[in-house]
Amino acid sequence: MADAKDAQFVKDIADMTVDFPRWYTDVILKTQLVDYGPVKGTMVIRPYGYEIWERIQEELNKRFKATGHKNAYFPMFIPYSYLVKEAEHVEGFAPEVALVTHVGDVPLEEKLVVRPTSETIICSMYAKWVQSYRDLPVLINQWANVVRWEKTTRPFLRTSEFLWQEGHTLHRTEEEAREETLKMLEVYREFMQNVLAIDVLTGVKSEKEKFAGAEATYAMEAMMLDGKSLQAGTSHYLGQNFASAFEIKYLDKDGQLKNPYQTSWGVSTRLIGALIMAHGDQRGLKLPPRVAPIQVVIVPVAVHKEGVLERAAALKEELQNAGVRVELDDRDQSPGWKYNEWEMKGVPVRLELGPRDIENGQAVLVRRDTHEKFAAPLEGIAETVKETLDAVHENMFRMSHEFLHSHIVTCNDMDEMKDALDKQCFVKAMWCGDRRCEDKIKEQLQATSRVMPFDQTPVGHECVCCHKPADKVIYFAKSY
Amino acid sequence: MADAKDAQFVKDIADMTVDFPRWYTDVILKTQLVDYGPVKGTMVIRPYGYEIWERIQEELNKRFKATGHKNAYFPMFIPYSYLVKEAEHVEGFAPEVALVTHVGDVPLEEKLVVRPTSETIICSMYAKWVQSYRDLPVLINQWANVVRWEKTTRPFLRTSEFLWQEGHTLHRTEEEAREETLKMLEVYREFMQNVLAIDVLTGVKSEKEKFAGAEATYAMEAMMLDGKSLQAGTSHYLGQNFASAFEIKYLDKDGQLKNPYQTSWGVSTRLIGALIMAHGDQRGLKLPPRVAPIQVVIVPVAVHKEGVLERAAALKEELQNAGVRVELDDRDQSPGWKYNEWEMKGVPVRLELGPRDIENGQAVLVRRDTHEKFAAPLEGIAETVKETLDAVHENMFRMSHEFLHSHIVTCNDMDEMKDALDKQCFVKAMWCGDRRCEDKIKEQLQATSRVMPFDQTPVGHECVCCHKPADKVIYFAKSY
Repeated sequence: MADAKDAQFVKDIADMTVDFPRWYTDVILKTQLVDYGPVKGTMVIRPYGYEIWERIQEELNKRFKATGHKNAYFPMFIPYSYLVKEAEHVEGFAPEVALVTHVGDVPLEEKLVVRPTSETIICSMYAKWVQSYRDLPVLINQWANVVRWEKTTRPFLRTSEFLWQEGHTLHRTEEEAREETLKMLEVYREFMQNVLAIDVLTGVKSEKEKFAGAEATYAMEAMMLDGKSLQAGTSHYLGQNFASAFEIKYLDKDGQLKNPYQTSWGVSTRLIGALIMAHGDQRGLKLPPRVAPIQVVIVPVAVHKEGVLERAAALKEELQNAGVRVELDDRDQSPGWKYNEWEMKGVPVRLELGPRDIENGQAVLVRRDTHEKFAAPLEGIAETVKETLDAVHENMFRMSHEFLHSHIVTCNDMDEMKDALDKQCFVKAMWCGDRRCEDKIKEQLQATSRVMPFDQTPVGHECVCCHKPADKVIYFAKSY
Repeated sequence: MADAKDAQFVKDIADMTVDFPRWYTDVILKTQLVDYGPVKGTMVIRPYGYEIWERIQEELNKRFKATGHKNAYFPMFIPYSYLVKEAEHVEGFAPEVALVTHVGDVPLEEKLVVRPTSETIICSMYAKWVQSYRDLPVLINQWANVVRWEKTTRPFLRTSEFLWQEGHTLHRTEEEAREETLKMLEVYREFMQNVLAIDVLTGVKSEKEKFAGAEATYAMEAMMLDGKSLQAGTSHYLGQNFASAFEIKYLDKDGQLKNPYQTSWGVSTRLIGALIMAHGDQRGLKLPPRVAPIQVVIVPVAVHKEGVLERAAALKEELQNAGVRVELDDRDQSPGWKYNEWEMKGVPVRLELGPRDIENGQAVLVRRDTHEKFAAPLEGIAETVKETLDAVHENMFRMSHEFLHSHIVTCNDMDEMKDALDKQCFVKAMWCGDRRCEDKIKEQLQATSRVMPFDQTPVGHECVCCHKPADKVIYFAKSY
């Protein structure tokens, strides 16, 4: 019976090895993480998805505050004239901004941009707030919705409106600003590994791929199970570009008026897409324990037997008190049906509890990541559960790490590159630095440059594309 | 010296008894809670203000989750056609909605409403999600930004864009939905009293003042220090109005397709305005301890003396470990200057620590609410501080309660009413229920009906306005 249901569940989800995009869509809709909004390209984040976001917010807020940042909130509407102040910035964003032109029937004097990112409006405020070197550094983060109208959309990965955080900092020196840029990249990397259990490649973007208006964009790239790369977060060194355009000036110790140096950095609800596509399997989601809305589900077996439900309820309370996010599934369904549902929903640990278990003073633990199944004494079970959750996390991270590093191929020419990409791998190669090579690779292989890693130990001497002398180590991949 | 500075601080803030609105503006700008955004009617919530909002969110989330609600996120853009589906709703909101008509240079096929509230878009999703009585109740809350274009704006109180939460629930029966409406009103009331230390009047709104599309609107009204009322939160019983307009239908146990019954309820960043105007004084803010970003500030005295700064830092750590939000002010300024600044910023408790205090094994505590000053042993000081914070809260609530109840006057006619309003009081009166009386009172006395309290013990038999027989007890007041 359980097997039959199991087969059916699998049947309802497209085969991930055949049609990964449909597998993704099937999984996110069936597990009720998300739904399509009525306006093209928008999404509704349903409670099960939003709870993951709340965990992400909590974990990042801890890290942002520990590094001295405070949250604030800036208006969503930006005067159109602000967008055009930084030349590269407007070029990058103007075609995809949503514009408010009317209130009710009345046209506005100046059309308003719904923020695609907040550098411009935040700089206009910083120009008011910063006067003296004593006002520096400014270390502010914002949690907000932003809008970028995209042609091709997919829930979490690319939507017209999404939720994110954006840090915007000002510093007295270039050195300090550059340090901040790398510090926040490192905060993100540590978060990806220790919270989402995803390994990433970090490094600097090419000129072509950098943020519109930045001097340098650093990014982390995660490998999805189809071998595509997902840019999971960025940290920009903005130099004095915006500060100068918005006339942010401070009186330095030496009595001179100067522009401060600036950074911005952000991650978004895209991270939810990342953890689905980095960890899932044919049964559905596999949620990293540290952000899973439900870490443990208790499924009582033979619920009609006296004492089973009561014992299960007591177990739930015990785990709850120990700080575990736990749910007791006492619905009127067979255990097999429930096992399948909770596996699909990616709950990291299942606890089965039947009359015989209770007699033996034990419960049965089943891990979502390895399907490992073992009995554990009810005495001290909260400790066992917590250790198991940590073990699940460690194993999921190890899997992600191994998957990433076993799917990177060093290539010397375009043929090797094509071959590697066809095998759903990332390409590590030398690059001359010429944008025309990036364009050619994009055109011929549908791959883009991802990052140039900090470790620039050469893997050759010629550009993988034009074969001219090359001194840049870089990753190429197909990407989301 | 300290006195001179003190006088100057007071001089910079308008006299609250003479010009309360300017006092408000002076205080919020000088304490850096907020700033004006570049677009008319918008505000920037600065870190000191936003931290209050984060505390409010945390406290409300606890209460919402304890009553079974989950958070989700719905798109901000609503197809214009949705707004017009509920007749009263569109009439109420259409003139003040911001409309997105273009993306970049390209006009949209259908103009989009930037949500002024989310009933319509949420109902369109609920219609998809709800099929059976087993899907009920639906208990969802959303934290989001909303936009309502207002002619007259003031930071926190009325802004074009503001932050809020909006609960949207569906129920099988009218009884259950009505119960939910009142339950959430009660959650709000308890929160106002136990967290913001503000007493409120609760009750039901008149037809004229209710939410566009509701069957009944319940509200809580708080009294500001100028005797005006501020609507601090609302809870609406929506009946089947939206469910029917959006065709939300479920198959009931009896095999019939039915519309569920609905509620919605919300509070906003307006609450920050409420706590400023309910508690402040001539020196500035007086923040309720449970939402104050900084609960205790340590001001070391004679910092050049050996050991003072070290002892102050140790004290800070001790309080931090005890869960107190504490700041050590080691800036290069005189203690008097710092005392004034932190009083203006409304920090509930100040801890002064000088060499003599350290010798005597004590610190000096100063309460923001009563200006009471007393020495406390450093041994066990965390406990003393926490008790003091609770005492400050209790006293602030008692003050609010007494202020409210000593400023309510029962009136029998328009002259008495004018007199009471001129004395900055709320009016308690009998009302016939005719909207024309409300209109007349608005026109002649600039007061509006606030709520009809649950306790309807009559205070007369005639309408305060038309003197016809009246059976409704109601409050009138000038309001924000």
